[in-house]
Amino acid sequence: MKIALAQLNYRIGDIEVNTAKILAEIEKAKEQNVDIVIFSELAVCGYPPKDLLDYPSFIERCETALQLICEATENVAVLVGGPAWSKLTKGKKLYNSAYFYADQKLVRRIDKTLLPTYDIFDEYRYFQPNEVFECVEYKGEKIAITICEDLWNLDDEKLYKVTPMDELIAQKPSVMINLSGSPYSYNHVEKRRTRMQLNAKTYGLPLFYVNQVGGNTDILFDGGSMFINRMGEIVEECEFYKEDFKVIKWDSDHIYEDNHQDYYDYDIGLIHDALVMGVRDYFGKVGFSKAVLGSSGGIDSAVVHAIAAEALGADNVKAITMPSRYSSTGSVVDAHKLAKNLGSPFSTIPIKEVFDSFNRTLAPEFEGTQPNVTEENLQARSRGIILMAYSNKFGNMVLNTSNKSESAVGYSTLYGDMCGGLSVIGDLYKEQVYELARFINRYGEVIPYEIINKEPSAELRPDQKDSDSLPPYPVLDKILFHYIEEKKGWKEIVAMDEEGLTEDIVRKIVRMVDRNEYKRFQASPTLRISHKAFGTGRRMPIVARYNH
Amino acid sequence: MKIALAQLNYRIGDIEVNTAKILAEIEKAKEQNVDIVIFSELAVCGYPPKDLLDYPSFIERCETALQLICEATENVAVLVGGPAWSKLTKGKKLYNSAYFYADQKLVRRIDKTLLPTYDIFDEYRYFQPNEVFECVEYKGEKIAITICEDLWNLDDEKLYKVTPMDELIAQKPSVMINLSGSPYSYNHVEKRRTRMQLNAKTYGLPLFYVNQVGGNTDILFDGGSMFINRMGEIVEECEFYKEDFKVIKWDSDHIYEDNHQDYYDYDIGLIHDALVMGVRDYFGKVGFSKAVLGSSGGIDSAVVHAIAAEALGADNVKAITMPSRYSSTGSVVDAHKLAKNLGSPFSTIPIKEVFDSFNRTLAPEFEGTQPNVTEENLQARSRGIILMAYSNKFGNMVLNTSNKSESAVGYSTLYGDMCGGLSVIGDLYKEQVYELARFINRYGEVIPYEIINKEPSAELRPDQKDSDSLPPYPVLDKILFHYIEEKKGWKEIVAMDEEGLTEDIVRKIVRMVDRNEYKRFQASPTLRISHKAFGTGRRMPIVARYNH
Repeated sequence: MKIALAQLNYRIGDIEVNTAKILAEIEKAKEQNVDIVIFSELAVCGYPPKDLLDYPSFIERCETALQLICEATENVAVLVGGPAWSKLTKGKKLYNSAYFYADQKLVRRIDKTLLPTYDIFDEYRYFQPNEVFECVEYKGEKIAITICEDLWNLDDEKLYKVTPMDELIAQKPSVMINLSGSPYSYNHVEKRRTRMQLNAKTYGLPLFYVNQVGGNTDILFDGGSMFINRMGEIVEECEFYKEDFKVIKWDSDHIYEDNHQDYYDYDIGLIHDALVMGVRDYFGKVGFSKAVLGSSGGIDSAVVHAIAAEALGADNVKAITMPSRYSSTGSVVDAHKLAKNLGSPFSTIPIKEVFDSFNRTLAPEFEGTQPNVTEENLQARSRGIILMAYSNKFGNMVLNTSNKSESAVGYSTLYGDMCGGLSVIGDLYKEQVYELARFINRYGEVIPYEIINKEPSAELRPDQKDSDSLPPYPVLDKILFHYIEEKKGWKEIVAMDEEGLTEDIVRKIVRMVDRNEYKRFQASPTLRISHKAFGTGRRMPIVARYNH
Repeated sequence: MKIALAQLNYRIGDIEVNTAKILAEIEKAKEQNVDIVIFSELAVCGYPPKDLLDYPSFIERCETALQLICEATENVAVLVGGPAWSKLTKGKKLYNSAYFYADQKLVRRIDKTLLPTYDIFDEYRYFQPNEVFECVEYKGEKIAITICEDLWNLDDEKLYKVTPMDELIAQKPSVMINLSGSPYSYNHVEKRRTRMQLNAKTYGLPLFYVNQVGGNTDILFDGGSMFINRMGEIVEECEFYKEDFKVIKWDSDHIYEDNHQDYYDYDIGLIHDALVMGVRDYFGKVGFSKAVLGSSGGIDSAVVHAIAAEALGADNVKAITMPSRYSSTGSVVDAHKLAKNLGSPFSTIPIKEVFDSFNRTLAPEFEGTQPNVTEENLQARSRGIILMAYSNKFGNMVLNTSNKSESAVGYSTLYGDMCGGLSVIGDLYKEQVYELARFINRYGEVIPYEIINKEPSAELRPDQKDSDSLPPYPVLDKILFHYIEEKKGWKEIVAMDEEGLTEDIVRKIVRMVDRNEYKRFQASPTLRISHKAFGTGRRMPIVARYNH
């Protein structure tokens, strides 16, 4: 038997285009005499479709698409994800389903049982869980088909009461197939491999696993579809961050040898590729080809510039440096050198005149007051406005250059450096930004070494350094990671008794994170690479008073 | 038997303060010889606690609070909402529970069965559903206790397979109690009353229903706790938008007469009160006492100004008018008259100098280009920056003055008029803003009649009118309502064959709504008064391509 893994990049809601892509893969499968070609979860509409699922007309168009796919299954079987009406009088109106078509007929529809409703997932918002378990028989094989989360309930502490494979295994299947929509976060690749290998070993069955690929706004799908043999060895693995189509010869009597392709699993390299894909897909899918960013001569904008240049082409990334009276000469020189290294267009637009005119305009109102953070914010906001004006005039999307450490503690100006259509490194802590810069320079200088080696500064007042207001980044990032990713309260963090983690500092940082929820609420979409990014996946009440 | 409805305004996460409030009400109940005092859903931690529930230390502190409440139940029984560990090895880790304490002991813990996971609700994200149904016996009564959503599964098309009261009724209870956290939206008061009356009639039992009150960021709880007799008549109803404590004499042999208090159910009045409470609570809970807003002389800023003045006191609301070369003299005069009518401080800060300096600064970069939307946005953003500078300097929170019609079609400038810490009327269509203005003037002129009667204009270019780019508001609002609230696609809206709803216009508007998702993503929190507000409750993918 020949089984194909079809790993595609879908556009959410673009049902007709998704369907055309699916049909093209089906034709390819036929040409190669494939028996079953497998697509990912909710492939016809793209994942996650969110509240588009509330529109009855949306579901109807998915049904039309599925009908077209069904009609294309002459001499091939197809397994494809799509929504289905529940037809029950009780419960949610939809199922998240996998359609098994062969010989232009629906052989069976399999509905998803386990509906993740945590972090970025909201499936219980839309779908009714399946309660019926039956394998599909096809060409002498008995196939246990599940959808994504259905294979994830293997922990000692189970999140769900039912484990679909525990039900299906009673029917003695010969193979497992799983249709997924499993997003990337930086330690998730290994987690997913390990979990799927565990499934193969637990049930003693080979597993065909198909994921989608591509960035959908903030959520990045990395692909990595795979075939795992019954001993839990990864026999075939699809590309990461690319569409792929892999045909696997397999029958239930035969166990393949391991020829698992070598893919670098150096974290920062995967993060790099994820961000490049995320930028490229966001621009492509919202219809932009050019970017503009404020290039300060600091590490954050440098890394964003390099990533954007790789994703969009360097000449499509306009860099503007906007010096003020507090900017060092070095900053402008370094930003310019970076643009030259990359080959990007570059301009210098000083903000002095605009800043002075704000001060003059506000002088009558501000009479008798002292300069404070107001004037620092005015500089950041003048820059934001200049970038937005450039964007309006020439159609370049503004890239936001904030990192996760800054947005965690609110070391940023709303409507100033928080401007932008997309935050590229907003899910990377400052230390990870440095690591990424070194990775970008792995074959030689792209980001000027001066930028990597200078001390971080917002340059909003004379001789300002980030370390005036914040602990050193290695300490800050550690506290943030324990608080945000690990969900430890300040007492637990202090109790770890690690260097720099004094009660004063930890409490101060935790309080800063809490108090800046209101700023993050208005942040741009952020490419998600960790398992706990700000945004969709971390929902804190703004008005809360709670002392962690 | 004497039963008390304790309707309180809780601060999310402020467990110790919430508990102190609860304990004070318990003392009040003891003084009045109350038998059972009832608090609302998740009262100890406030509702909705969101991802604070992910912190084990948060749950522990709720448990400590519950223990204190338990110890206070000498000579009185207490029913209070709080989270509980599930202690199962499978499933979600928490229950959403009601604790029934009497004589300093836990009589029973009741867990919530139906977990809403739609619109603003995310309960399946955190909680395991209850599967055990048992009434509580106390002082000769058999009490069927449920939590909020548990009483809402009465439709012909049921959202859930289980209906808790259908299970409990078999034990022949004598009375029902429901602990709720039920937010306001403008037609929800009547819906809730009707639904609870239907429960009483369906099961032939009296119902004590306790809701919380107060604004939690965007979500507004209106209170309206009630006692409904077994015939479905509302016998007692608590205040709306205020804390209340109502003692009801009742025993299962006695049916009270109807003395349902008169509360105006004129929609716009309720909306008005909701917004006043929303502003007051948001400011109070984040620790601000003063507001600032851009007062343009238009209807939107006028209504926001009036609402804010009522919520915070007129002298705590600073109004700034920021005329440009395109502003009519009338605008400044009208804005000034409004401030005088209300008694608010008022300044005029012209933006000409700032605007000119942006143009000069950008001139080398913009050489050879024509003025377009860029220059309009520069004006809006100059105003936004001035307001933010005032906010930074004096500690007034900027109020956003956008309405729902504008933000639906993106007729607004990101980082310009979209600035602000809170959007007050962002869930009101333009026509509702006018209605609200007329309501504010019900006892005489507060908002100058000139403002109500002038034609809407953004005043960003000479003689500009909103109707240059948009259909008349009655038509626009109708299309938006059908598309957003009613979830009709453009074909369905055109098929309604109503005045002004031509295919051209409807398709254009629907497309505008879709294309401006990215702007709304960065909008401030918006007080929610409809059942489908932008923000938490409507989640559309930004990168979607889907033709409604």
